[in-house]
Amino acid sequence: MTTRSGFFLEDFDVGRVFHHATPRTVTAGDRSLHVALTGSRFAMASADTFAASCGFAKAPVDDVLVFNMIFGKTVPDISANAIANLGYASGRFTAPVHEGDTLDAVSEVIGRRELSNGRSGIVWVRSTGRNQDRRTVLDYVRWVMVNKRDPASPAPETVVPALAEAVDPASIVIPDGLDLSGYDWAAAGNGTDWDSLGCGQRLDHVDGMTIEEGEHQMATRLYQNTARVHFDQHRSSATRFGRRIVYGGHIISLARALSFNGLSHACLVVALNGGRHTAPTFAGDTIYAWSQVLAKADIEGRVDIGLARLRTVAAKNHPCDDFPDRDDEGRDHPDKVLDLDYWVMMPRR
Amino acid sequence: MTTRSGFFLEDFDVGRVFHHATPRTVTAGDRSLHVALTGSRFAMASADTFAASCGFAKAPVDDVLVFNMIFGKTVPDISANAIANLGYASGRFTAPVHEGDTLDAVSEVIGRRELSNGRSGIVWVRSTGRNQDRRTVLDYVRWVMVNKRDPASPAPETVVPALAEAVDPASIVIPDGLDLSGYDWAAAGNGTDWDSLGCGQRLDHVDGMTIEEGEHQMATRLYQNTARVHFDQHRSSATRFGRRIVYGGHIISLARALSFNGLSHACLVVALNGGRHTAPTFAGDTIYAWSQVLAKADIEGRVDIGLARLRTVAAKNHPCDDFPDRDDEGRDHPDKVLDLDYWVMMPRR
Amino acid sequence: MTTRSGFFLEDFDVGRVFHHATPRTVTAGDRSLHVALTGSRFAMASADTFAASCGFAKAPVDDVLVFNMIFGKTVPDISANAIANLGYASGRFTAPVHEGDTLDAVSEVIGRRELSNGRSGIVWVRSTGRNQDRRTVLDYVRWVMVNKRDPASPAPETVVPALAEAVDPASIVIPDGLDLSGYDWAAAGNGTDWDSLGCGQRLDHVDGMTIEEGEHQMATRLYQNTARVHFDQHRSSATRFGRRIVYGGHIISLARALSFNGLSHACLVVALNGGRHTAPTFAGDTIYAWSQVLAKADIEGRVDIGLARLRTVAAKNHPCDDFPDRDDEGRDHPDKVLDLDYWVMMPRR
Repeated sequence: MTTRSGFFLEDFDVGRVFHHATPRTVTAGDRSLHVALTGSRFAMASADTFAASCGFAKAPVDDVLVFNMIFGKTVPDISANAIANLGYASGRFTAPVHEGDTLDAVSEVIGRRELSNGRSGIVWVRSTGRNQDRRTVLDYVRWVMVNKRDPASPAPETVVPALAEAVDPASIVIPDGLDLSGYDWAAAGNGTDWDSLGCGQRLDHVDGMTIEEGEHQMATRLYQNTARVHFDQHRSSATRFGRRIVYGGHIISLARALSFNGLSHACLVVALNGGRHTAPTFAGDTIYAWSQVLAKADIEGRVDIGLARLRTVAAKNHPCDDFPDRDDEGRDHPDKVLDLDYWVMMPRR
Repeated sequence: MTTRSGFFLEDFDVGRVFHHATPRTVTAGDRSLHVALTGSRFAMASADTFAASCGFAKAPVDDVLVFNMIFGKTVPDISANAIANLGYASGRFTAPVHEGDTLDAVSEVIGRRELSNGRSGIVWVRSTGRNQDRRTVLDYVRWVMVNKRDPASPAPETVVPALAEAVDPASIVIPDGLDLSGYDWAAAGNGTDWDSLGCGQRLDHVDGMTIEEGEHQMATRLYQNTARVHFDQHRSSATRFGRRIVYGGHIISLARALSFNGLSHACLVVALNGGRHTAPTFAGDTIYAWSQVLAKADIEGRVDIGLARLRTVAAKNHPCDDFPDRDDEGRDHPDKVLDLDYWVMMPRR
Repeated sequence: MTTRSGFFLEDFDVGRVFHHATPRTVTAGDRSLHVALTGSRFAMASADTFAASCGFAKAPVDDVLVFNMIFGKTVPDISANAIANLGYASGRFTAPVHEGDTLDAVSEVIGRRELSNGRSGIVWVRSTGRNQDRRTVLDYVRWVMVNKRDPASPAPETVVPALAEAVDPASIVIPDGLDLSGYDWAAAGNGTDWDSLGCGQRLDHVDGMTIEEGEHQMATRLYQNTARVHFDQHRSSATRFGRRIVYGGHIISLARALSFNGLSHACLVVALNGGRHTAPTFAGDTIYAWSQVLAKADIEGRVDIGLARLRTVAAKNHPCDDFPDRDDEGRDHPDKVLDLDYWVMMPRR
């Protein structure tokens, strides 16, 4: 008897909804592990007192941790058989998550297209993370390349969803009660403030973080992400890489943590405009990161909060003081592993 | 001055009781680490909401984590000088453990037999884990091979306890308030349900998990298990293996976590009939597992719950689609590392 | 734009105060990770029930964990550019820390001296860790060697603080409500009791603990310590060691955990008299430890509590049954990595 099969292109009918398994109560343990695995130092997720001075009852759970927990739940249904995780878009964090909240996830298929090779295709899903009150805490679109179960089966109708290039800042949700007018600048580090950030400005985050097999495995299991490429060296030995691959979400976590150097006041991630894992990462690689300010936006009626649209690029074994990016033909630098486009909320002076 | 000696065969008089050191308050941190180290996805231990819908006030602590925490406490007294950990029997989980409960452990010697070589012997103990209200949460028998302090000392009287081949299902304790009539099947994954399980049926759990030194060390220290063979590479270099050995309880945890593929509705482990660690595991090994249904049992007066007696076998570097087990002469397959026989509680449709 | 610079000798004017970034709410997750990373078994920090029987509302957070969390906060300002972390003195734990407390740290420069080479100097700071009520939980002095920004800048005025050789036992703070008259000796392990400890007595802690890269990185990140030498293999490859260096505070944690063998009743660390990291430790090294009793002291009016001044020495790849220490000329044994002098509080019979 086979006890795991996953799904194939034929299974992803547009409109089909997957109720993913294993709800999860987020705990202090999850938060500590996230710190231990990434070194994140953002004050908002670190200290109840700091968060309380910003209007939260307690420190919210790190946004990237929430993302990875929701993502993990979708893996057995959406990407167990995926050939590649192609991208993200249209993500919004719509309610803070606190210790004791229980998260679950559902995904709806919103697009499908067979590739010209006839053997595989692309599937778009919108995944929604919810808390115990059925309130959405995060939703985002991702698309993956999956094999067909039977190459002889007819090509399904092509449906490609329209995806905005970026989340409209007017649609970004401000957490209930958030008030940054009493923000403790010193406690939050010496990063650039929102008013000083210039569009187009680039920041090298300087530090590097080397990844060990045990670390990325623990992070990925913490998210209950079961994709076998991250865990099974015996089978990986026969693949083209010959090794386990680091889960891309762990790279996002590391890049966000590294961005504290320079962006310590980017206190909340509030939207995910897009993202690509441009190359695989392996244990032993050292991750560096740099960021660029793509845009800034006001929030109507608020003088305490500003929005900044950032692009954070992570590279492996390549310190980022030269801002590795794309060449003249648009090809990613071979050391690049992540290109993430997102909105953050920041205090204003 | 020597600050650690442990005990020898002469010390284990039948009837002697050991009150083991270091009580432990179980926390959310312990639960998160167990997930991060094993990838366990059983909904009951993962989500307060799910557990509440089954009659618990909050999610109970994973049974295997409880087992390992109790076991760890017994090590300095029972097995610090053990040559081998030979087996388990007659174990029952008699009360759920929740965050905030404080566990301690006592062990009573229930058997002793000198081996014909005159230099060592076998000791049987019944270990009991209790919570802060002195209520037993788990008790089980294990037996170990230990050296004599002095080979010239006379052989002690032989006492071999009578151990049942399996725990009587009628003696299994149903947690107070447990009610699986509203069980959320989708949230708990797509495993086989109790009614469909056939006696003798075998299930391949498919996925594999490679163990790193840092991981098994963290797991074993989390249980405050001090057996030096798991931690001391300097001294291990001089042993026949030349390496640290993975604690067998970590293999139990991994095998249980892997069994989610197919047995996701085996929501509570309620009894331990027997178990053997059939070969050592080392860092770098990839663990796979398969299970066999040995028996099923009803519970008098309950239509919501069924019992299944399972045998879960773990193997290293050997995917289990061929169900590695014993050869015609009863010898274990050399890749087998664990053979565990236990009862689980499952919902009924 | 550079997003991290740190400070140089010229910046450390005597009297200057640094308010360090990132306050931290200590959680059950932090405590569990500390156990998983060190194997600590002291009952006081392990069990709420045990701590309650000693007069605490709940188990206090392990003192060494508190030390490392406070230390970590000081790193970006004090030692980001340090050449060496030279020593500790005059440390006192002045209030217990419990889950839910939020810690922050400030440091005041109390001394500065340029070295004869004209390119670097020594800076002394007193660092103070505080809880959310601004109550000091720990303060201690440390001194570091740092480069000058500009070797041509004039030598600053030399100020060398007077530091006591040891903390006066009369100044040690007894936690509010602490009462060890009902101490549960069996639950706390089989260490030597205070009355039996002899001045000058040495204890071998027997067990060894091998450190993996993932482990020391997780520990150091848990403390939000950002010193790059611990994390960046890519850059470390070009250093004289060619490797990442284990954070010295992790060695302190391991040595304290190992000291349970023999000193299980040294239930609270209450003062730090001095300490030196005498050699670097690298992943793969196995840490052993031994301790010596330097002094004992009564506490006025208390028959339940005694103080012991201990020196704990850790060594790498060198079991400590021969008590590696200094040679006749006072040079540390090359395998020594830590020499720590501190006061502990112990129950009296």
